[in-house]
Amino acid sequence: MSADASAGRPAHGPAAPSAEDEPAGFDLRHHGDAEVRGADAALTDLAVNVRTGTPPDWLKARIAASLDGLAAYPDGRAARDAVAVRHGLPARRVLLTAGAAEAFVLLARAIPARCPVVVHPQFTEPEAALRDAGHTVRRVVLEERDGFRLAPDAVPDEADLVVIGNPTNPTSVLHPADTLAGLARPGRTLVVDEAFMDAVPGERESLADRADVPGLVVLRSLTKTWGLAGLRIGYVLAEPDTITALERVQPLWPVSSPALAAAEACCTPSALAEAARAAERTAADRAHLAERLAELTEVRVCGPAAGPFVLIRLPGAAAIRTRLRDLGFAVRRGDTFPGLGPDWLRLAVRDRATTDRFVIALAKALAEVTA
Amino acid sequence: MSADASAGRPAHGPAAPSAEDEPAGFDLRHHGDAEVRGADAALTDLAVNVRTGTPPDWLKARIAASLDGLAAYPDGRAARDAVAVRHGLPARRVLLTAGAAEAFVLLARAIPARCPVVVHPQFTEPEAALRDAGHTVRRVVLEERDGFRLAPDAVPDEADLVVIGNPTNPTSVLHPADTLAGLARPGRTLVVDEAFMDAVPGERESLADRADVPGLVVLRSLTKTWGLAGLRIGYVLAEPDTITALERVQPLWPVSSPALAAAEACCTPSALAEAARAAERTAADRAHLAERLAELTEVRVCGPAAGPFVLIRLPGAAAIRTRLRDLGFAVRRGDTFPGLGPDWLRLAVRDRATTDRFVIALAKALAEVTA
Repeated sequence: MSADASAGRPAHGPAAPSAEDEPAGFDLRHHGDAEVRGADAALTDLAVNVRTGTPPDWLKARIAASLDGLAAYPDGRAARDAVAVRHGLPARRVLLTAGAAEAFVLLARAIPARCPVVVHPQFTEPEAALRDAGHTVRRVVLEERDGFRLAPDAVPDEADLVVIGNPTNPTSVLHPADTLAGLARPGRTLVVDEAFMDAVPGERESLADRADVPGLVVLRSLTKTWGLAGLRIGYVLAEPDTITALERVQPLWPVSSPALAAAEACCTPSALAEAARAAERTAADRAHLAERLAELTEVRVCGPAAGPFVLIRLPGAAAIRTRLRDLGFAVRRGDTFPGLGPDWLRLAVRDRATTDRFVIALAKALAEVTA
Repeated sequence: MSADASAGRPAHGPAAPSAEDEPAGFDLRHHGDAEVRGADAALTDLAVNVRTGTPPDWLKARIAASLDGLAAYPDGRAARDAVAVRHGLPARRVLLTAGAAEAFVLLARAIPARCPVVVHPQFTEPEAALRDAGHTVRRVVLEERDGFRLAPDAVPDEADLVVIGNPTNPTSVLHPADTLAGLARPGRTLVVDEAFMDAVPGERESLADRADVPGLVVLRSLTKTWGLAGLRIGYVLAEPDTITALERVQPLWPVSSPALAAAEACCTPSALAEAARAAERTAADRAHLAERLAELTEVRVCGPAAGPFVLIRLPGAAAIRTRLRDLGFAVRRGDTFPGLGPDWLRLAVRDRATTDRFVIALAKALAEVTA
């Protein structure tokens, strides 16, 4: 792996960040939804990592029922309690947020870090939020030859804030829980983004209930498994002092009543059982995708993949992405992720039939582009 | 009026603010919803300034229809365009926010003010957000003897950020648009919180469409008139550069899809006509409330009131508030607003029947407490 310090905006209190601070080469503010926005309705979406066929009808009904109470200001107490019970934690270790995206902004504002480190390739919002808050961010870039896995000495000792995804978007690597817990140090805040952990069977390697790890902050999302990307709901699990600090920089009434209703509904035993079944199905669908991709000799699949998406390397990825669009498929470009380059694409795991259709299109695009 | 500088947290970049920074005497984080939370369901709510009987069924249906698209990330473009058209402004002068509360946090983060001034008594979130962002806030406190109206020299010349409400919560004073526009100066950001302006017939004195006033930032809410407090939706109207600066400190996907659907729905001509009718009804109901309160010699109504609430002064307000609760009515305490004291209460305007019931209870409470 390699480390590089990317100069952020100097920390001089409130001020509007300017565009020229963006490090050259990576558009940290590009996300999968841009790949499908304004597209032909017929485009099959493998760019956005939200489970298809979601939200389920029962959940939609629960959310719809909450609309009767819209005139009242949101009251997050019941949802907070439900999340706490679901993870076996006290409510004072839980903060509900308007999606994980808000949590990154709160962390960037509230954690007084001098040496924040972001482990890449990963979701780019944590670094973008840290930079916008005036931090100078140091990158630890994991390497393809290591399978994008973390070596024990990867993170510099002086890092007092470390952000890492598990399973990691876009590499789909699942780091062992003990490896991540081993990054904890006195005086260090360790942020583990578990936005996709509920798509991992058994949530193995989750640190969500590990209240014993000092300085640990776990971020969770309800967006991907439950199809609530439009509703903005996620949560933070951390030490009570950290929760209090984050809460103080959060706007008043941060999470809407429908989102609170959804959070509560997704924490029931039957919802958790449904999520567990969905995770098993995703694992099977991912295995099928990997198998089919293995038929294409030009494509290398980064593995073992554990998330509801896979990262692939192939020659001429940019041209292939364009060609796939013509053939009716949206995929996520990989070149906006620090540590990746123009040869990478990220593919959402879909059902077998969709995968089979897609792999035929990919084979066609490859043949045309590499001809 | 009087001015005092209240010491905020020193501006030293990202850090968690601490509780001891709160200036003594005023709980800036107390809001009307706390007065009804966890209360007996039978309590009649005159504490929260949301129009009763809201949201209307047609609006609830529009929001419910948006739930079909929850799996997709929010796309705010159509709602932004609708707000722009409604105010006759280009879309680049519009920013949608998760309620006005989020807008205050964004302004506090993005506007590089050295001398921010908040005109009190007013909604306390702007000052709280400024302080949490590290600003030292100066207060201009309007006086009862001036009818809480703004004198031309009230705001110090050096103020480079001025926040004022119109109509003002909790005084219900409507400042003339020209008086407020006259506060604009080169190098000064003038924030006018118009969260309740759509409850003023004809929206007279609104600065929403005044793109000619330099440094003007108008905040609007859809919460009060439409009963969407639980949905979190509002917007900012400002110069494009200011909008860009605010947008850069906003979390990704800040406004939920149901909230965006609501914003769009509330900007149609028929919705605006409905809001206008509601404003006329509120004005009539407020006149009735003032008339009934005039029967109670101990009660002084701050006037002329222009918002969907009135501020009253009466002896023993704290004890009366408690007694009113026993009698089935929640009212908003006034003593958490800088510039007010223990003798003040804020009352939401309700229909005539509710007002009549309330005034009887108030008379009873007054008789008991002042006996």
